[in-house]
Amino acid sequence: MNITRPTLLIDKSKCLENIRFLSDKAQKLGVKLRPHFKTHQSVEVGRWFRKIGTSTCTVSSIKMARYFLDNGWRDITCAFPLNIREIDEINKIASEATFNTIIISPKTLSDLKGKLFASIGAYIKINTGSNRTGLEPDNFDLIEELLQGMKENSNITFKGFLAHSGHTYTARSKEEVETIHAEEMNIMMSLKKRYKEKYPQMEISVGDTPACSISENYNGVDEIRPGNYVYYDIMQYLIGSCNHHQIAIALACPVVAKHEERNEIIVHGGAVHLSKDYVVANNGKYIYGYLVHIKEGGWTAPIEGAYVRGLSQEHGIIKAEPRIFNSIQEGDVIGILPIHSCLTADLMKEVYTLQGEKIEMMR
Amino acid sequence: MNITRPTLLIDKSKCLENIRFLSDKAQKLGVKLRPHFKTHQSVEVGRWFRKIGTSTCTVSSIKMARYFLDNGWRDITCAFPLNIREIDEINKIASEATFNTIIISPKTLSDLKGKLFASIGAYIKINTGSNRTGLEPDNFDLIEELLQGMKENSNITFKGFLAHSGHTYTARSKEEVETIHAEEMNIMMSLKKRYKEKYPQMEISVGDTPACSISENYNGVDEIRPGNYVYYDIMQYLIGSCNHHQIAIALACPVVAKHEERNEIIVHGGAVHLSKDYVVANNGKYIYGYLVHIKEGGWTAPIEGAYVRGLSQEHGIIKAEPRIFNSIQEGDVIGILPIHSCLTADLMKEVYTLQGEKIEMMR
Repeated sequence: MNITRPTLLIDKSKCLENIRFLSDKAQKLGVKLRPHFKTHQSVEVGRWFRKIGTSTCTVSSIKMARYFLDNGWRDITCAFPLNIREIDEINKIASEATFNTIIISPKTLSDLKGKLFASIGAYIKINTGSNRTGLEPDNFDLIEELLQGMKENSNITFKGFLAHSGHTYTARSKEEVETIHAEEMNIMMSLKKRYKEKYPQMEISVGDTPACSISENYNGVDEIRPGNYVYYDIMQYLIGSCNHHQIAIALACPVVAKHEERNEIIVHGGAVHLSKDYVVANNGKYIYGYLVHIKEGGWTAPIEGAYVRGLSQEHGIIKAEPRIFNSIQEGDVIGILPIHSCLTADLMKEVYTLQGEKIEMMR
Repeated sequence: MNITRPTLLIDKSKCLENIRFLSDKAQKLGVKLRPHFKTHQSVEVGRWFRKIGTSTCTVSSIKMARYFLDNGWRDITCAFPLNIREIDEINKIASEATFNTIIISPKTLSDLKGKLFASIGAYIKINTGSNRTGLEPDNFDLIEELLQGMKENSNITFKGFLAHSGHTYTARSKEEVETIHAEEMNIMMSLKKRYKEKYPQMEISVGDTPACSISENYNGVDEIRPGNYVYYDIMQYLIGSCNHHQIAIALACPVVAKHEERNEIIVHGGAVHLSKDYVVANNGKYIYGYLVHIKEGGWTAPIEGAYVRGLSQEHGIIKAEPRIFNSIQEGDVIGILPIHSCLTADLMKEVYTLQGEKIEMMR
C-alpha cells in the first residue's frame, strides 16, 4: 500500500480478536452484549460483529441510528437523551426497527405527548459518578415522575436503568477501574432491587470499555454496551484495559521534516486527523500519541524514547531521543497509535486494512 | 431555519466584514494578502474573498490545494513542508497553477531530483519561536545548503523566507502579541538584509491571525497569510485579536437535559462537532466554548455566568448559574461560540447562513 498522506490503518485480525474477546466474555458472564458503534461508525466493521452473532447495537446519535438501520440493523439503542427536535426522524426509525433511547427529562416526556407515533423503549439514565448526564440515583421523586410519565404514553415502554461510568477513563490502574465499577454496581443493583417487582421486565444496562475489559463483576446486569474496545487506544492501554498488541488502528503519517536542534520530527498528521485528545504522562508532559514502526503485515510495539508532543491542524510534532531521531528520515512513513480511537476514526472517515482494502464509515 | 441537530451557523455579514478588514489593512500596510483557507475550507467562502479582489490563497495540504485549484484558484501556496510521497499530485498541481510550498529538508531536496517535472516556488520556513517547524534563524549552514540545492534544480525557484509565529496563540494580551511579532520581525528582517542582495526577488511571508489583527508593524514584509480571522473564535477573543461581535460562526445545539443538582445543561454538541480544543480560564477552569442565545438574524453577546465545561463525543456539558440554568429548557436551541473555529469548521464539514443557505466545504 502506497501511503502518500495521513491514512488510518486497521489491523483486521486484532480487531476481530477484540470483537471476539468481549463477545465471549459477555456470553460467559451471561449478559447481553449491545456494542456501541460510535467508535467505528462503519457498516463493514458492523458486519464483523454480526458474523459472530451480534444483532443489536448502541449508537450515540439519531443520524447514526439511521445509518445502521439502513444497513440492516433492526434493534438499536441510541444512548443519548431524546432530543424532541428530532421527533420526525425518531418516529420513522421507531416504525422501521426496535428503537430504544434515554428519557431523563419530564419536559421532554411532556413534549412527546401527541408527537410520538411509534413504539420506543426508554431507559432512565443514572449518574453513577461521571457527572456527565443522568439522574442522581437517590432522586426517587424524579424517577417516579418519569416512570409515571412513561406509563401515560402508550408508545413508551420503560426499559430499565442505564449508566455509563465514563470516569473510568480517568483511572490509571485496574484497581481504580474495579473500584469505580463496584460503585456503579452498588447503585444499579440498589435501583434494581427497588423497582424490579413493580417493573419485572426492567433491565440494567451498563458498560464502559475499561470496566467491561477488566472486571468480572456483572452479576445482576442484563446488558453491556462497550464500544471503544473494537479498536482500543493509548488511553485504554494506560488505564489497563488492553495491552498494546490489542490496539487495532494506527495512523500512518509521512515524515516531512526533522529538527535536530530540538530532536523533533515533523509528520503530516495533526489535530484534524488524530483529534486534540491527550494523556498526561507521569512527568507532566502532554502526549498526543505513541509512535510505532509500520512493517510488513502491521506495526511494531510502541517505540520507546519517542512520543507525539504536540499537534496543530496538520502537523504532528514528535519528540525523539537521538537514537530514534537518527533512525527516521523525511520520506519515511511512521505510525501513530491514537490516544482516543473514537475521535480519530470519526475524523478520518475511512479506514484501510493492511491489505489496502478501504473500509467506509458514516459521512 | 429548523435546527434539529448540531448545526454550524455563519453570520455572513460578520464574515464579510472580517474578510474586508484584513484586505483593507493589507492594502494600507502595502503588503500582499494571501489568506489561509484552512479555516473555512470552502469554495463558497473563497468566492467572498475573490469578490473583493483576492486571487491568491494559502492551504495546509495538497488535498486542499487540489480542491481550491479545481475551483478556480490559480496561485496557491501550501504552507506545509513538501512531502515527497505526494510528488505525483504536486507535479500535476504545479503544471496547472502557480504553486509554492515549503522546503526545509536537504533530504527532500535530494529526493526531488529527477522527480519534479513542473516549476514550483519554494520558501524556507524559519522557526521564529513557536518551535513547531522551521529552521533556526541562525542556522546559516543549513540555509545555504538548501539555497544551493534549490539552485541545482531548475524546477525550483527560491521564493523567500516564511514564518508562522503560532505562539501568539498562547498570548493573552495585545502587548504579548506585539512582543512576539516584534521578535519575528527582527528575525525575518535580519534574514532579508542578509540575503536580499543575492536573491533580489526573495520575499518575506509571515502572518498569524493575532499579529495580523493587532499589529501595524509590517514594514519590510512582502506577504501576510492569516486565516482564522475569517471566522475568529473565543481563543482569538481572549488573545485580543477581535471582539466577540466579530466571531462569525456559532454551533447551534439542541438542549436535551438539565441537571439541577449540578446546575448543568446537556446539549447535543460534543467533541465530534466542536473539537477538544479548550482555553484555561484565570480560575484554572477548562472552557470548551462560550454560550450565546440564538436570535432572529444572529446571536447575542456571550452569556455571562455560563460556559461549556466539558465535552464527550456527542455531549456538551454547560455549567450555568441558576438564573441562566432556569432560563434554558429542553427543546431549546442554544449557541456555542467555538474555542478554535478552524477545528470546528473542519469537523462540521458544512456551514449554514442565518438565512438557511448551505455552504459546502471540502470533504
